Amino acid sequence: MKKCILTIFAFFLTIGLVSAQELKSPNGNFTMTFSLLNDGTPTYALTYKNKAVIKPSKLGFELKDDKNSLLNNFTVSDTKSSTFDETWKTVWGEETAIRNHYNELAVTINQKETNRKIIIRFRLFDEGLGFRYEFPEQKNLIYFVIKEERTEFAMTGDHTAFWIPGDYDTQEYDYTESKLSEIRKLFKSAVSSNASQKQFSDTGVQTSLMMKANDGLYINIHEAALINYSCMSLNLDDKTFVFQSQLTPDAQGNKGHIQAPSVSPWRTIIASYDARDVLASRMTLNLNDPCKIEDTSWIKPVKYVGVWWEMITGKSSWSYTNDFPSIQLGVTDYSKAKPNGTHGATTANVKEYIDFAAKNGFDGVLVEGWNVGWEDWFGHEKDYVFDFVTPYPDFDVVGIENYAKSKGIKMIMHHETSGSTGNYERHIDKAFQFMNAHGYDAVKTGYVGNILPLGEHHYSQSIVNHYQFCIEKAAEYKIMLNAHEAVRPTGICRTYPNMIGNESARGTEFQAFGGSKPNHTTILPFTRLMGGPMDYTPGIFEMDISKLNPSNNSHVNTTLANQLGLYVVMYSPLQMAADLPENYNRFLDAFQFIKDVPVAWTESKYLEAEPGYYLTIARKDKNSNNWFVGNNNGVKPRTSTISLDFLEKGKKYEATIYADAKDADYKTNPQAYKITKQKVTNKTKLSMTSAAGGGYAISIVESK
Amino acid sequence: MKKCILTIFAFFLTIGLVSAQELKSPNGNFTMTFSLLNDGTPTYALTYKNKAVIKPSKLGFELKDDKNSLLNNFTVSDTKSSTFDETWKTVWGEETAIRNHYNELAVTINQKETNRKIIIRFRLFDEGLGFRYEFPEQKNLIYFVIKEERTEFAMTGDHTAFWIPGDYDTQEYDYTESKLSEIRKLFKSAVSSNASQKQFSDTGVQTSLMMKANDGLYINIHEAALINYSCMSLNLDDKTFVFQSQLTPDAQGNKGHIQAPSVSPWRTIIASYDARDVLASRMTLNLNDPCKIEDTSWIKPVKYVGVWWEMITGKSSWSYTNDFPSIQLGVTDYSKAKPNGTHGATTANVKEYIDFAAKNGFDGVLVEGWNVGWEDWFGHEKDYVFDFVTPYPDFDVVGIENYAKSKGIKMIMHHETSGSTGNYERHIDKAFQFMNAHGYDAVKTGYVGNILPLGEHHYSQSIVNHYQFCIEKAAEYKIMLNAHEAVRPTGICRTYPNMIGNESARGTEFQAFGGSKPNHTTILPFTRLMGGPMDYTPGIFEMDISKLNPSNNSHVNTTLANQLGLYVVMYSPLQMAADLPENYNRFLDAFQFIKDVPVAWTESKYLEAEPGYYLTIARKDKNSNNWFVGNNNGVKPRTSTISLDFLEKGKKYEATIYADAKDADYKTNPQAYKITKQKVTNKTKLSMTSAAGGGYAISIVESK
Repeated sequence: MKKCILTIFAFFLTIGLVSAQELKSPNGNFTMTFSLLNDGTPTYALTYKNKAVIKPSKLGFELKDDKNSLLNNFTVSDTKSSTFDETWKTVWGEETAIRNHYNELAVTINQKETNRKIIIRFRLFDEGLGFRYEFPEQKNLIYFVIKEERTEFAMTGDHTAFWIPGDYDTQEYDYTESKLSEIRKLFKSAVSSNASQKQFSDTGVQTSLMMKANDGLYINIHEAALINYSCMSLNLDDKTFVFQSQLTPDAQGNKGHIQAPSVSPWRTIIASYDARDVLASRMTLNLNDPCKIEDTSWIKPVKYVGVWWEMITGKSSWSYTNDFPSIQLGVTDYSKAKPNGTHGATTANVKEYIDFAAKNGFDGVLVEGWNVGWEDWFGHEKDYVFDFVTPYPDFDVVGIENYAKSKGIKMIMHHETSGSTGNYERHIDKAFQFMNAHGYDAVKTGYVGNILPLGEHHYSQSIVNHYQFCIEKAAEYKIMLNAHEAVRPTGICRTYPNMIGNESARGTEFQAFGGSKPNHTTILPFTRLMGGPMDYTPGIFEMDISKLNPSNNSHVNTTLANQLGLYVVMYSPLQMAADLPENYNRFLDAFQFIKDVPVAWTESKYLEAEPGYYLTIARKDKNSNNWFVGNNNGVKPRTSTISLDFLEKGKKYEATIYADAKDADYKTNPQAYKITKQKVTNKTKLSMTSAAGGGYAISIVESK
Repeated sequence: MKKCILTIFAFFLTIGLVSAQELKSPNGNFTMTFSLLNDGTPTYALTYKNKAVIKPSKLGFELKDDKNSLLNNFTVSDTKSSTFDETWKTVWGEETAIRNHYNELAVTINQKETNRKIIIRFRLFDEGLGFRYEFPEQKNLIYFVIKEERTEFAMTGDHTAFWIPGDYDTQEYDYTESKLSEIRKLFKSAVSSNASQKQFSDTGVQTSLMMKANDGLYINIHEAALINYSCMSLNLDDKTFVFQSQLTPDAQGNKGHIQAPSVSPWRTIIASYDARDVLASRMTLNLNDPCKIEDTSWIKPVKYVGVWWEMITGKSSWSYTNDFPSIQLGVTDYSKAKPNGTHGATTANVKEYIDFAAKNGFDGVLVEGWNVGWEDWFGHEKDYVFDFVTPYPDFDVVGIENYAKSKGIKMIMHHETSGSTGNYERHIDKAFQFMNAHGYDAVKTGYVGNILPLGEHHYSQSIVNHYQFCIEKAAEYKIMLNAHEAVRPTGICRTYPNMIGNESARGTEFQAFGGSKPNHTTILPFTRLMGGPMDYTPGIFEMDISKLNPSNNSHVNTTLANQLGLYVVMYSPLQMAADLPENYNRFLDAFQFIKDVPVAWTESKYLEAEPGYYLTIARKDKNSNNWFVGNNNGVKPRTSTISLDFLEKGKKYEATIYADAKDADYKTNPQAYKITKQKVTNKTKLSMTSAAGGGYAISIVESK
């Protein structure tokens, strides 16, 4: 599949002088220029339609205990260019097939004094650039320790950014929209408290970072294929607007232990004057390896309910008893403990959820708090927190297993690790065997609190390796995995599609912890979702949390219609209806959309997109000709006209429109919605209005 | 079994004043006095025959982020005294039954300001004191982090000590004999290089620490039952001769994460005017919990040979090929690699060892270097170093398994972890399943190099927990375990007798790494062996290592007869004949002792003992009425008369004496020995001479 392309200018100058190589995207819109500075420092620059996206930016590494490092004194010893064009089939995704089309330039640079070489591989797609460092097998560069990666991303100006604070342990922050020059002064107020967090700089931000230049150019920086490497954040020089890579340190402050041959993750830059192109890009997936799981027949999208929101809101508890000041697994005797009366994961309650799931066509039921240890699970840097196999006395594993089977419902396992990665690895085989034995084929994992081993961070190299270990181990057991509080995804779900979800951002739970910004989900698809789907857990119908738990005054900062729109806007093969059955039963007409909306798609259309302001997406069901449209809106009410021209020509459809009522408002009147039906074709245009913090959802069913 | 004893003086004074409690040993020789200083600091003191052993010494803990700590402001709220006398049966040991007899005083002290309490439990045996801290269940002391344990051991003067440098990662040092006041100036020269090492103070020493006071009192300080706690070294104030406990830090510099209820290890002090009493003490074992393995029938002492010394000396290699600059397991393709021609663990070579073992009555054959990865196994803080199940192309697992079975020989597994504890835990189940499947029931593990997780030490709490995890996991699989480079043992083999050995000191390998001091093994029984047996790997017959490998000029600093003596002097249920078969075949008359000497005993007699100078021990075979005597001598030739009065009265025996020849000398004439036979009874006295660095061995066989 690899052919030389002649459009590449590659010219070598004598050693010590600048050499430059140019690479163009297949459509010619992007040009990447690689060159060496006079001191042999490698640099790259990127233009889009002849305008600079990335000004000349340095590449390289500062190494530990190595005065030469891999920063400069390089000469170009080889360049190879090629082109690649392939379409691959997804196991699940926003579409059934993805085109992977790029031109590639691999530049080998030599550091003469040390006789070391690295390859910088650039892949230029129609929507942007990916590049990575490669350390080929060689005598003088085998093992080395990265003090810092020195990759620069030099911005052309004081762009607007949608950013969260750079942090080694969490991404569970609300986004701040500001100029780059304003980050420093806004930084402290952008940091909300979390169970584990560590910022590194008051101009540090995380990827995927979404920006918008003054001329309307959207720029997105992220990484792809984060494997055996530490997670990259960005540190801004707010005088020059140059971002520099900031890797996550290990317990000793080092940023990476590398053994050649190896490669870094890809650093990605997507740019377009149309924000929808950013959402439509599959660069992140394309830069990951093809699927490594041979038989993927057991991997299936899942729509689920669960014993979860009632604990998140404080209506019920994960824990079983209040008897013990602390828990020592294997020592603490639960059999004599007095139940606290608030435990959520009781057999009776779980069976009610199973009934509800079966009645409404869901695939699965998640249960948190089913296993012993929750009385004392968090915050003590404690190793042996959970064993992942011992149920509470009031959770009948086999009884629930059989009941769920009889109703055609899959139980979804929950493994909270409390950040104790070593303990999870000690128990993971038995835990997965337990799942296989009891009919669980998906697990939600969690990493709340500081990481053990002590001193490591959620995004350190060895902990990134832990998450990967779990993904691969789960695949061995044919288990789908959905990790919460893990590192944000980077497209690895292409290689391991059993990773059907991740949290790794501020999810719906924060609506019960004081609330998120109303425009939060108009940003997430441009940031967190660039690396893979999120288990966002939408579908909250009761916005006044005090109705569930009088001592919780949180308010869900969206309208009900916005919650319905999330099922389309926030693509995931794993979608929860997160609210309590009793709340759905109060709004059965609106709940119909959640029942109807698929979790598997053939095609996606990005109708409208402005990060922070609005998003309208249409997707086609994988199992019918039906389409579903979702909209999320920011804080200003908005009306726009969308065209249904994506519908099949000549066919007739009935649209059911779940929209904000005229007087709807996320704060004052969130449950005001109206449902209308109308006949539509591909010529139909709909004028749609979304309230502040509102949105809408439309199901478009083929008339037969 | 617990009764109150009336001999205890326990009196309470009003709060704020000194209160004192006294405890006497069953034989009345020891008195321990507990008291509070005026500021409520707990202290203890110890006398032996009315002379001070430990002057009043403080007890307590400095806690992290806790201004009160657990140092002072205590009052005594309760004391409980009791006595205990029980004899328990060993699974293996220096005798078949051990008496556990002590008087106990448990002092509960309260810190009024914080409403916290701890119990200090003292057990006074006839040979010394054990005490520990206990943190009972309570509201105000559940989780805490130890900044440092502040246990003092105040010496009465400038004792002579046999010490090795305090180090968080290794005990593989030669011992230095010096006054306490001389430690500081000798410290640097006492530190030899090691693959992983970290000293903390130039008056820091390790336990078990053996001392001798000017008045001839021997004092030994160690710890027992090191479980879920970090290893203790001692830091000397060389002006006051007060030792203070120095725990091993974790990656963040903390010394321990504690969750109450819990207990510290025991701190032990043994004292006597007769050094033999120190060796005869079973206090360390007695302070550990009884055996937790129900069926111990599969745990058996082992005498073995192995493919090992040839690699240690550099005659052959662990690695299979020289083709690769580095190894990536699962990526590196060994099938096409060119063998280096020096690989030791070849099928053919292993079969020769099996033949030799079978011919000479050994139980097992250890093979190191059988599994892929050895080309690149060490020193790179690399995680995935070994997988513990993949053999080299020239090691036929099944062929060897069948061959060994046909010869009645057990294969002994080898798992070098390279200090990568997490990687070992990831693979341990499969590795143990592999052992079960292929007939291996014992494993030698290794922890060479710096520990992973990074920043942890060999003796940190979490790594101590790792070793314990492996012991318990091995027990699940009915596997005997012998850990090298792990933390030095503390009697845990009573609780888990499948831990049949440990290295954790300078073993025979150092004789091929430049040599150890000639008197090394006259000290080890007083230090390293106080906590449990050592896999010392004795039996070297060729002292000139250059004869095995011309480029290795090491000399084994003992005589051949000394090597024979080691099999009795250095008690272990796991004894190797470490030299090459070809060297044993040159000295078959001397080798006869190694063939004859048992590894299981009913009884042990300590005939002579002076640490650093000489040791003579007699032991009775578990399976006959035969006795075996071993002697090791220091650097001065020595003659003494030993009495065989331990033999059964009226019975006749034939003694075979393997002694240094007259002109023997560890340096100039190490292989000069003579073997004599004579009839002996319990009235016989033997005048025995040992050369410098010499020794002897005697087998005493009942005449029937």
